Amino acid sequence: MDIFIEGSLIKQIGQGLQVVADTIIEGTNKAVFPGFINAHSHAAMTLFRGYAEDLPLERWLNEKIWPAEAKHTDETVYWGVKLACLEMIESGTTCFNDMYFRTQSTYQAISEMGLRAMISDTIFDFFDPKNAEKAKRMTEENLKLAQSFDSTIRYSIAPHAIYTVSAELLKWSADFAKANNLILHTHLSESRQEYEDSIKNFGLSPVKYLHKLGVLAPNVVLAHVVWVDDEDIQILADSGANVVHNPLSNLKIASGYQFKYEEMKRKGITVCLGTDGCASSNNLDMTEAMKVASVLQKAWRFDPTMLTEKEALDMVTVNAAKALGLQAGLVKEGCLADLTLVDLNQTTFTPNHSTIANLVFAANGSTVDTVICNGKVLMQNRTVKGRQEIIDNARRMAKVIA
Amino acid sequence: MDIFIEGSLIKQIGQGLQVVADTIIEGTNKAVFPGFINAHSHAAMTLFRGYAEDLPLERWLNEKIWPAEAKHTDETVYWGVKLACLEMIESGTTCFNDMYFRTQSTYQAISEMGLRAMISDTIFDFFDPKNAEKAKRMTEENLKLAQSFDSTIRYSIAPHAIYTVSAELLKWSADFAKANNLILHTHLSESRQEYEDSIKNFGLSPVKYLHKLGVLAPNVVLAHVVWVDDEDIQILADSGANVVHNPLSNLKIASGYQFKYEEMKRKGITVCLGTDGCASSNNLDMTEAMKVASVLQKAWRFDPTMLTEKEALDMVTVNAAKALGLQAGLVKEGCLADLTLVDLNQTTFTPNHSTIANLVFAANGSTVDTVICNGKVLMQNRTVKGRQEIIDNARRMAKVIA
Repeated sequence: MDIFIEGSLIKQIGQGLQVVADTIIEGTNKAVFPGFINAHSHAAMTLFRGYAEDLPLERWLNEKIWPAEAKHTDETVYWGVKLACLEMIESGTTCFNDMYFRTQSTYQAISEMGLRAMISDTIFDFFDPKNAEKAKRMTEENLKLAQSFDSTIRYSIAPHAIYTVSAELLKWSADFAKANNLILHTHLSESRQEYEDSIKNFGLSPVKYLHKLGVLAPNVVLAHVVWVDDEDIQILADSGANVVHNPLSNLKIASGYQFKYEEMKRKGITVCLGTDGCASSNNLDMTEAMKVASVLQKAWRFDPTMLTEKEALDMVTVNAAKALGLQAGLVKEGCLADLTLVDLNQTTFTPNHSTIANLVFAANGSTVDTVICNGKVLMQNRTVKGRQEIIDNARRMAKVIA
Repeated sequence: MDIFIEGSLIKQIGQGLQVVADTIIEGTNKAVFPGFINAHSHAAMTLFRGYAEDLPLERWLNEKIWPAEAKHTDETVYWGVKLACLEMIESGTTCFNDMYFRTQSTYQAISEMGLRAMISDTIFDFFDPKNAEKAKRMTEENLKLAQSFDSTIRYSIAPHAIYTVSAELLKWSADFAKANNLILHTHLSESRQEYEDSIKNFGLSPVKYLHKLGVLAPNVVLAHVVWVDDEDIQILADSGANVVHNPLSNLKIASGYQFKYEEMKRKGITVCLGTDGCASSNNLDMTEAMKVASVLQKAWRFDPTMLTEKEALDMVTVNAAKALGLQAGLVKEGCLADLTLVDLNQTTFTPNHSTIANLVFAANGSTVDTVICNGKVLMQNRTVKGRQEIIDNARRMAKVIA
């Protein structure tokens, strides 16, 4: 089967296509997948990889992550994001939904690397109206900045969480997103503490609180959503909001492991997968996210039929494309030419009773050979342009922040 | 720091060693670890990778695994084990504790690949004395065969489990192991079903039942041990028996996820890690086993300080070496020269705030560059001799069995 790409799109798929192409990539002994989509990341946090381990959440944040983040500069963020993009390309990810700071540096790095992304400058007000005003002005400025972005990179609005952002700013964010046709990206119901505090402070679960504020809608992407009851799930389903499960982060920082995938799926909620930042999950490999999402769901329900390999693959392709409003996530004529080619001549694809099972349960990101995004080849034969420069500079930057 | 290897041993470690070596391996930008030890595997099951997914245990066994296993020949086992060895070498494993069938073919394959191993021909009698007699004769013959094995490969006795092996054959196995100075390798308390059946059939938990039979001792390696109470853990500790946790297999086939690592550690039990066979965990990558063991322990206890990266690394090195009676698992003068060199010039080791955290939480087996076992270089620059022949033949054999 041949795939013909023209510009940024998959133009034609068929056997023995009679077309003239500038570049030909041989697919023998390779399998093509839609490029993986990481639906929740904090790219620049690659610089914190391995920096703060095995600590209780409070100490992890107060003693390590926040002090280190305070040292970020445009340059550290730029190289942190470059490193993240390199790692994502090397493991088959073509698109990511990011939430962090310093929009311009983040944009610059992603644009140079050629990946597709939603980026955002996280909003907090800590319940202080002065901070809220600043956050609004920053968001408005970023949106102006975003008008000159490449078509592959879109700005989204990202109020951090219900415990750091006031009701007023959350409502403003939702209105701003609707008025400007933006994705709203936020953390929700990640930990038991957040859930219990929400009940205590707002008299409602985190989901019901956001629902009451009128935030939940189809343009909303909610990261985590671990602590929910049946009513919450029904509210999410009715609202059309999208959910991102981050299994490795949830496990590692012990936020909760009983993610209600099956219930959400049954109600028709679009569930995607993310890695979260490298301070809490340490890498950006979506094959690992797929595997652990699947086996974790099987484990805690004591049911090995749960969350199949096909469903895991859908979560990082079609589901995520739907959540982010992209004509992507499928190897199909008319879709964006975001493709990941895996080398089948690897032990983890041997034998090959099922290519999808091997991808999800046996392989890791290193089996990816070639990555195409928006019709452009970002990696071929595992070679990415400028790789060593990125590694060297990221090492240098890590000393600045930590 | 230089490491000088002479014969099968680490002879000397120091800065600027003044020695003459036949082979010199440059260590710049690499980190050296003790070769990883996979303490519970069924190597030839690589041929079943991806063959039977998302099925309830009964159907998985009866409809897929057992019919496929019945089609095994010496040739399929030989190539299945070769593939397993290739995969283990490529991911930094230098030693494994295997349980399967067809000792001679298994031995031949491992010997050619140069890995260290404990191998065994699984014993079942299904509570029929005639089968028990056959199992005893086979074991005696295998032990004779084992006298001509390379020094790197030892035979162990492997009664399958308490639900497939009679008390009489279990006791005989324990006596045979003691008389011949062998490791006894068995599955124990893997699933809730096994635990409940044990109570019903023997009036005792699986651990207490084996204890009553006099099987538990320091030469015993128990795979899984998921379903235990405090008394069981105390009995295990008093007996000196060793435990192998197989996190990915336990999750994927939904055997149980609340492995009592912390309680076992506190009682001084030697806990190791295994992958189990590729039908239930799909790959043989010990970095994945380390990561998932750690994050799973943190998750189900809601405590991110549990099972640190250092403890995970100990489980696949010093702990496993102790369980298997090997002078290995440390990069130390006098220890066996079983070493794994990781390439630090990888995104997952960038930046490098902690090499061990990066190995356990960020990296995967593909970051391994060089593997030395018993003083011999099995892989350098990710090149293993005969690689393509193994992949081609394993693919051919998979068609025979499935």
